[in-house]
Order: sequence, then C-alpha cells, then structure tokens
Amino acid sequence: MAALRRRRLTVAYDGTDFSGWQVQPGRRTVQGSLEEALERTLGSPVRVFGAGRTDAGVHALGQVAHFDAEDELPEARLLAALNSRLPPDVRVRELREAAPGFHALRSARDKTYVYQLHLAAGGCGRRAVEAQLPPLRRRTFHAIPGAADVAAMRAAARLLVGKRDFTALSKVMEAGRSPVKTLHAVRVLRIPHGLRVVATADGFLYGMMRLLCGLLVQVGTGRRRPEDVPALLAAADRSRGPPALPAQGLLLLRVRYGTGPRGLISWPP
Amino acid sequence: MAALRRRRLTVAYDGTDFSGWQVQPGRRTVQGSLEEALERTLGSPVRVFGAGRTDAGVHALGQVAHFDAEDELPEARLLAALNSRLPPDVRVRELREAAPGFHALRSARDKTYVYQLHLAAGGCGRRAVEAQLPPLRRRTFHAIPGAADVAAMRAAARLLVGKRDFTALSKVMEAGRSPVKTLHAVRVLRIPHGLRVVATADGFLYGMMRLLCGLLVQVGTGRRRPEDVPALLAAADRSRGPPALPAQGLLLLRVRYGTGPRGLISWPP
Repeated sequence: MAALRRRRLTVAYDGTDFSGWQVQPGRRTVQGSLEEALERTLGSPVRVFGAGRTDAGVHALGQVAHFDAEDELPEARLLAALNSRLPPDVRVRELREAAPGFHALRSARDKTYVYQLHLAAGGCGRRAVEAQLPPLRRRTFHAIPGAADVAAMRAAARLLVGKRDFTALSKVMEAGRSPVKTLHAVRVLRIPHGLRVVATADGFLYGMMRLLCGLLVQVGTGRRRPEDVPALLAAADRSRGPPALPAQGLLLLRVRYGTGPRGLISWPP
Repeated sequence: MAALRRRRLTVAYDGTDFSGWQVQPGRRTVQGSLEEALERTLGSPVRVFGAGRTDAGVHALGQVAHFDAEDELPEARLLAALNSRLPPDVRVRELREAAPGFHALRSARDKTYVYQLHLAAGGCGRRAVEAQLPPLRRRTFHAIPGAADVAAMRAAARLLVGKRDFTALSKVMEAGRSPVKTLHAVRVLRIPHGLRVVATADGFLYGMMRLLCGLLVQVGTGRRRPEDVPALLAAADRSRGPPALPAQGLLLLRVRYGTGPRGLISWPP
C-alpha cells in the first residue's frame, strides 16, 4: 500500500449557489463538492481541510485546502480529473504536494479578503440604491450611494489597522477563541463606478470582514465619523457595532503561508 | 389626451438567462421584459425598439432602445418605476426624452462590441482548456489556450479594419442587406489572465463579432496566419470562414448616435 501523501489545493468558486464552504448534510457546499470529486477520482472517501469557512454566497479566488490520500497520481492528472468532475462554479486552480507539516488552516500566515461596492449614481433610500446594481455585478457587488465620502472611509480604515480586540466587529464570539487579531492593512480602492475594500489580517473573526465593511459604509454615508472608530473598538460591544454587509460582495482573495512570500493573485479573476 | 412622446433608454443586462433581445412567444427575452415592465407602469401596451438584436446568452452594458408613450411622468420617476419592476438581470441605466426623429436602430452611427477571452494556464485540447474557466468568469468569458500568439492576433485584427465585404464573417446573409460594413477599429487588449477584443463598426452582420473573434483565435492558436485574412475576406465564402465563438463571451458595450460624441461607458460594468 502506498504511503499517505498530503496535497495542497488553491480553489476558486462562485459562492452564489453554495451553502458556504463547510459540509452540511443535504446542502450543496464547496467542501462537499471537492470531497465528492476526490472520492470519485480516487475511489475512497477523502476529507478536505480549508483555510477559511466562507459563508453562503461568499466567493473565493484563492481559497486554500489540503487533503491526504494514498494515490500515486501525478498532480497534473489529479488536477485535470478533479476539474472534469467538479461543477463549473468551483475550480481547482493549482494542486501540488504540500510541504512537510503543512496545514491549510493552522499554517496560514495571513488572509486577504476583498469586498466590492457599487457606487449607485442616483436615488434615495436603500431600495432605490439596490435597484441600481448592474446585472453583471449582481453576484459580486453590493450597492451603496454614489455620494459616499471615500476620504472618510479611508480615514476610518487607517484607524482599524493594528493588533486589536475586534469583538465589536464579530458576529458571534466562539468560545475559547481570542478576539484579538492583527489587521495588517485595509485599503479602499477606487474602481469604475465602485470601490474595492481589500483587508489583510493574520485571521478574521466570524463575520468580521462584512462588519468591518459595514462600518466603513456607515462612515462613508455620514452615519458615523472616523473618529468614532477607536471608542467603538475599545467598547468591545457587538450590540454597538455596524450591520454586516451582504455575502455577495465578499471574496476570499488569497491565503499566505509561512513558507515564503507568494505573489498576489491578479485581479480580476 | 396627451401627445405621444419618444423616450430613449440605455439598458444593461446579463444575457445568460435570456433567449436574447427580441420578443419570442413563450420565451424570456430582454425586449419582452422591458415591454412588460412598461405596460405595468403605464397601463397600456408599449413596443420597444432596440439598436441591436443580441442573441441568447449575449450581454449588454450599453444597449440603446426607444419607445413612444403618452404619459406625463418625469423621466426620473419612470426610470425608478421600471427598475423596480424589471428582473435583476436587466437594468435601465438611463432614460431621457429622445431628440426629434431619433430611432434606436436607424439613427445609430456605430456600435462597439467586446469579446472576453480567458487565457487558460495549461492543458491540451478543447475540453481541458474549457475546464479551466474560472467560476467568476463563466458567464462572461470563453477560455482559449494561454499560449495564444497575441501579436499575430493583433496583426490579423489590423487587416480586418476598413470598409469591406464581411460575408466570410457572417452566419446567414439576410436578403436585401448589404454585406459591406465599415469596421472602424479592432483592438486586442491584455487583461489579467485574458484578452478583451473591442470592435467598433457602423454595423455588424448577423454573427459577425463571434466569427471575427473566432478568426482571431484561429490565428492566435496557429490554425491560420494573419496574411491569410485578406484572401478569406476576398473569397466572401461563409463555408471557408472560422467557427463562431460561444455567446457568453460577447457584450454590447456602446451604441453611438449622430447627435454628437458620447463618452465610452467605463469598464468594468
């Protein structure tokens, strides 16, 4: 019998029609789709471990996962076999033998998420703004008023960077997990008729990126001031936090590992 | 009774789930969706005339259409009412009173189409290349081998520009219509992991943009040489033409009118 080999996958998906990453009985999930394609390829059940459990509707360009199997298939053949069996809304971009001790979640050094905002040209009120979401952006963007104050959003973003208690920007605190994360960078980039919020941290609390972007949108639309951000974080009180933005605008761009710097995955997908 | 007023619409749509622009009994079409939303808003049947009859699966950022109605509604209110009634995969971007004599099809000065190509990193054969189409590109791109010779594609593109008989790049010749069109420009632009072919002409024959791009891909993959292009056009023989590329990569970007230059619709949508 062959020895167990660990492989590392880089995975992209359109999260629209998935109930998120994690396997759930009776639901269509990304992890479930990968495990099914692996089992059909290798002939025995395989467990896949991902770097991040993205929610229903959240997309990925560079999710990373690993699995162990005893096969002797060359990586290029295994990659082609998986992609021929996977549904078109999930693709394996890269498959290679993992370095010794590699673990998709535990070895991760940092993660980068992107949130895409469409700047609506006119209209007042949430419904009128949402009615302007362009058809080709409706799976991957969230619409906000076009008059958003980007300078204020950038000022607020700067105040979030650092090693901090992010309880105020978490949905549920998981027992035994520290609320302290190091946010390395939050950038608010202008794109045609929109903004891209790009955030890199050593880890993200549950719901953190969607709450962080919800906070920036509150600042951009005048409902909070940038200078309110430090007190919000210091209070560490979820009930005073902003509303989370919807899943469809969120995308896991990249997971970086301690094994050396890896280039940014180029944009767009 | 109020006088008939003509309005002009700029329309964007994700063509994936439409049977094209033109009304067909029992099918979901863009024109049909617009006419239904107008009838529900204005209370009587309205006919919508489009600048281009895009095929099933073809998208638009800047389709233009006109209609006549007797209402006295301000344009901003009519636009909001339409978007609240239209399905999310079609949006009216702009609605305004048309200049006297304006006709969406007959007044058009030129049209610009875009075809989006994904450059697949590896794999041989059509199926292996298609299996690499990234999930977030699968509605709007067609995959070709990453080794495509872009310089050769650009050389071929230059040989297509001008006033020519494009019979070789048409699917069906419509009776009484001239096969002569003036192609103002064909550009092959590099984008991350892909190419965008942008073509502007005073008009496009049926299937012309998808055949033109099929020809460029044949050149890029070594199945034709750029210097074969003039003879292909001169023969004016459809049976010697290239295969048409699939609908999903095609997008109607802009329709320009004689009423003065209009800015390019910015990219991405």
